[in-house]
Amino acid sequence: MHESDNVAIVANDGGLPAGTELTAGLVLSEFAPQGHKLALLEIGEESPIIRYGVCIGYALKNLVAGSWVHEGVMRTPAAPALDGLDIGSGAPATAQQAKAPPLEGYTFLGYRNADGTVGTRNILGVTTTVQCVAGVVDHAVRRIKSEMLRRFPNVDDVVALDHSYGCGVAIDAPDAVVPIRTLHNISRNPNFGGEVLVVSLGCEKLQPERLLSFGGIPVVGPGAAGPGGGGLGEHADVIRLQDPAHHGFESMVHSIMSAAERTLTRLDARRRELVPVSELVVGVQCGGSDAFSGVTANPAVGYCTDLLVRAGASVLFSEVTEVRDGIALLVSRAASASVAQSLLREMAWYDAYLARGGADRSANTTPGNKRGGLSNIVEKAMGSIVKSGSTPIVDVLPPGERLRQRGLNFAATPASDFICGTLQVAAGMNLHVFTTGRGTPYGLACVPVVKVATRSELARRWHDLMDINAGTIADASASIEEVGWELFRCLLDVASGTRRTCAERLGLHNALTLFNPAPVT
Amino acid sequence: MHESDNVAIVANDGGLPAGTELTAGLVLSEFAPQGHKLALLEIGEESPIIRYGVCIGYALKNLVAGSWVHEGVMRTPAAPALDGLDIGSGAPATAQQAKAPPLEGYTFLGYRNADGTVGTRNILGVTTTVQCVAGVVDHAVRRIKSEMLRRFPNVDDVVALDHSYGCGVAIDAPDAVVPIRTLHNISRNPNFGGEVLVVSLGCEKLQPERLLSFGGIPVVGPGAAGPGGGGLGEHADVIRLQDPAHHGFESMVHSIMSAAERTLTRLDARRRELVPVSELVVGVQCGGSDAFSGVTANPAVGYCTDLLVRAGASVLFSEVTEVRDGIALLVSRAASASVAQSLLREMAWYDAYLARGGADRSANTTPGNKRGGLSNIVEKAMGSIVKSGSTPIVDVLPPGERLRQRGLNFAATPASDFICGTLQVAAGMNLHVFTTGRGTPYGLACVPVVKVATRSELARRWHDLMDINAGTIADASASIEEVGWELFRCLLDVASGTRRTCAERLGLHNALTLFNPAPVT
Repeated sequence: MHESDNVAIVANDGGLPAGTELTAGLVLSEFAPQGHKLALLEIGEESPIIRYGVCIGYALKNLVAGSWVHEGVMRTPAAPALDGLDIGSGAPATAQQAKAPPLEGYTFLGYRNADGTVGTRNILGVTTTVQCVAGVVDHAVRRIKSEMLRRFPNVDDVVALDHSYGCGVAIDAPDAVVPIRTLHNISRNPNFGGEVLVVSLGCEKLQPERLLSFGGIPVVGPGAAGPGGGGLGEHADVIRLQDPAHHGFESMVHSIMSAAERTLTRLDARRRELVPVSELVVGVQCGGSDAFSGVTANPAVGYCTDLLVRAGASVLFSEVTEVRDGIALLVSRAASASVAQSLLREMAWYDAYLARGGADRSANTTPGNKRGGLSNIVEKAMGSIVKSGSTPIVDVLPPGERLRQRGLNFAATPASDFICGTLQVAAGMNLHVFTTGRGTPYGLACVPVVKVATRSELARRWHDLMDINAGTIADASASIEEVGWELFRCLLDVASGTRRTCAERLGLHNALTLFNPAPVT
Repeated sequence: MHESDNVAIVANDGGLPAGTELTAGLVLSEFAPQGHKLALLEIGEESPIIRYGVCIGYALKNLVAGSWVHEGVMRTPAAPALDGLDIGSGAPATAQQAKAPPLEGYTFLGYRNADGTVGTRNILGVTTTVQCVAGVVDHAVRRIKSEMLRRFPNVDDVVALDHSYGCGVAIDAPDAVVPIRTLHNISRNPNFGGEVLVVSLGCEKLQPERLLSFGGIPVVGPGAAGPGGGGLGEHADVIRLQDPAHHGFESMVHSIMSAAERTLTRLDARRRELVPVSELVVGVQCGGSDAFSGVTANPAVGYCTDLLVRAGASVLFSEVTEVRDGIALLVSRAASASVAQSLLREMAWYDAYLARGGADRSANTTPGNKRGGLSNIVEKAMGSIVKSGSTPIVDVLPPGERLRQRGLNFAATPASDFICGTLQVAAGMNLHVFTTGRGTPYGLACVPVVKVATRSELARRWHDLMDINAGTIADASASIEEVGWELFRCLLDVASGTRRTCAERLGLHNALTLFNPAPVT
């Protein structure tokens, strides 16, 4: 991976047995599984183990050349300090940007929204203020889909935005801003076309006014056309189940279905139009990672990230605990001192949040990561961070905040796949790229997810669950650049609706999962 | 409510206007809404406002007799101290128990399980280790219900036990025991007949072994009959989506459906039999409370709780922040000094948990509570606690712990309806009683929920969502005892499957919502 590395990864299916002679004359002293590390040179006790040119750990004993380097023979370094980093003036980042020429002429077919954003899908999202209403909303959404949706052929789907927040929570606690901001911004995701249909119970803590006024969306009652005279302007239709006008269950369902019909009529009148690729907001994420993640899929995604940014689009990379060990690298890529400070602020906040609960960044790695060859969070982070490509970081979004600036953004989120995805939806993502080595059927109901396999074996076995195979890079049948371009072109097709993702074809999606660092009551 | 009270509640629909003369000669000095308090006597500035015989606040100004006593004119007292309480020897509680004669001869028709518990429903629960598998499991469960369930007419339902835990969490943090224990015990709920069918991804942090071994359930592979030779013995069938034997989505769905068929065959062979009411484990909860909750529905539930306990059954009452202000009362009812200590331990833990997040118990009340007349958490708690009746508290269950002893148990949970319900499911609840004043369509997929309205107006308006109307108590058309007995008999019918609850008839249920006080990563 880097000229200074003293370990390499076993690419072969099934691993390599003891005695295997490698091209460089190195002989394996023991079996090493696929994706795991072997020592290229002798590594003395307490000496650094180097991968990606970075110290990912210290040897607990002398490791001879050709030995298997696993988590049992290494010690994890301390997290890099957050003070003392040179936050500079953004000059190196600007110079870096100058090297990447703009990429022009790429377009897709999207739905233009009144607020300037562009949707890749045309979906009716039913916002809920509280989990209490989920049973009624789920029932109503099933009926809208089975009884009404066929009359609105230009609408792709109807999605209940169910969640566990809204009541039984310390809503005035300092950290409650995170889930409230998240829910507010999810309703504004470009794929909902600027339409906001809210179902509230009535007595909940998260009153519709509080949810909607967060960003200044005016509230209008059921039946009102709202600002924009029934057009696509941002406005909200609010149904309260406890409204005295409701007599029994059917009248609640009827209210929701009537409001849905008004909204569906407006959504159905929309048409895709040709827009520049700069309207894409692509969230990149990895889950179920293995040692190939940082070798195949993530570098290809990083290459595609650079293509997107060069074309003027926005890319969100996230997962605080998976970039924490690379903070110096990120800071050096910050477009300004203020962006660098924001990066440090988010890292410090997360360090404190984990410490408060008796944990640290090392809680991130999973049994599957380790079986896949990732010995610790440093090695995982170095493989994860490459999804961000090489362009300057232009902005840092606190959890649940909406995109403010085009280009490469760090959207600060937990690494939990569902929480990260949910927060990227809130940030305004209209397309999602997800890499996986162990394999996951991950999907979202409101944003198409393009899944990239790190290994050909996974891509073959999960043939209908993986959209792109980056394992071809390890097989030496494709270059990082080729897979990066393949992904870029795939994204344009998916964004245009001419290609549906595996998760879309199978109707697979995970739950919206909020990040609530504040207490429940 | 109590002879020492200096406030009373307006029962009349629509409230009472200024000038209304009450029977006692008292004249209202201003309008007071339904459910709100009026001063029976003059209450001087800084004097205590007494309801339920308890100081629920201090007057911020002089309040003349007949004035409306709302949250704007009162100050909330500090939480009662946890040290210095007389934890006694359990003698008073024992004496109290002696006064309540056993109630004999009541039975219901239930499903006996091999572990000694009894189900009120016969449900196939599909345990999941991680949110990653939710899309595949939801698809499989839909197909099991549409393609297979009709062949197993004695099985009531198939339920995916989806949740947001399992990965992306600090699984070794001190508080992680709570969600893990909860998931473990949910799978053991009596309504799942001792059958444990698990769908795992493969690489997640919450490995099936970790989830299942928590309480010693042995793990066997797909196809194995497990201990009990295919009988009802507690054993687990585990499907891992990342298993190399799976080629594509359909093979995963096929594995789940095959395992489900084996489990459904066993469940379908079961029959209801006559069992004593002592096999009931009833969770009581309130949500969307108003000032009538403590006057009508909750006292009737409390009366029913006493009937159940006298009949040898178990009742779980919960909601730490809604009993915190009544801790002295609870401690005096503890069956032993050790139970009293456990009560204090759970209160102290929750105080610290809230403080860590910058909140306290006062974060509990909602806008709806306040509109309904509940001025603060003290008043809400005094009305909530009466659901527990008057018998001794025999045990305290930490969050997610399973029932250990028959009788009245305090199951320590947050007051959030969904989290409390989920933790009561984990505790082994086979029947749920839920009181509401503002109204909620609350339901659970795996345990029948009997909903009790605090007001007749709500019961009339939500005629198909409320199972019992306790508003008759305020209307003076029924006594607390009569409604308590009505609820008791209703519970036996629901437990026997001869009566379905409103939520069951409409198919309404809320999400399983875990309590995870530990960080996400």
